[in-house]
Amino acid sequence: METMGRHVIAELWECDFDKLNDMNYIEQTFVDAALKSGAEIREVAFHKFAPQGVSGVVIISESHLTIHTFPEHGYASIDVYTCGHLDPTIAANYIAAALGAKTRETVEVPRGMGPVKVDPLIPTVTA
Amino acid sequence: METMGRHVIAELWECDFDKLNDMNYIEQTFVDAALKSGAEIREVAFHKFAPQGVSGVVIISESHLTIHTFPEHGYASIDVYTCGHLDPTIAANYIAAALGAKTRETVEVPRGMGPVKVDPLIPTVTA
Repeated sequence: METMGRHVIAELWECDFDKLNDMNYIEQTFVDAALKSGAEIREVAFHKFAPQGVSGVVIISESHLTIHTFPEHGYASIDVYTCGHLDPTIAANYIAAALGAKTRETVEVPRGMGPVKVDPLIPTVTA
Repeated sequence: METMGRHVIAELWECDFDKLNDMNYIEQTFVDAALKSGAEIREVAFHKFAPQGVSGVVIISESHLTIHTFPEHGYASIDVYTCGHLDPTIAANYIAAALGAKTRETVEVPRGMGPVKVDPLIPTVTA
């Protein structure tokens, strides 16, 4: 199996409070995002925090998608890491739209190729 | 809850083949790494691939730890993301040692503070 992967790190701001606090909605969004990317889902684990916030992961054959939400700040921290031929920006864009993010900061980190480098992908996107 | 976090991305090379292919060992290593960091574990999900390789995640109250291993390349791709007062390098160092990594590339990405920046932490460490 090829080690090379693409890891998209995205900071989503000004998201919808209720969506960031709805574990079932986020879990379904992440499953849909993985499938839209063409990924094969292996494990799904999400957790709801009190009084608010959701964390979760979808492990795919091609690596993973994760999220941590801070509804009180309108903020979601997401990672979409794929190896093989998949494009992680498909899932990242889908998730950002589903959470109603008005501002997004994104970088892409190539993985598994030796020294770690970081490519700015979308330094700032304001809807 | 504070959005600010520290995300350590580490590429571990020249690791021990058998350890990279032992799901139970990796899961226990990750649980121990999280606890040594002072993290509170919320979800644990690991998956063994055929013919080889392990992927997994430990979701902690303070974010997550993930791994993907490629035993045939002696390579493990790990992420340790913590928010609050925790130090993600404690877990990253523990995992690298447990997997027998002889070469390591590490960067740290501050999360939840606005624009994404990347600080080189340990560009290259060769044991």
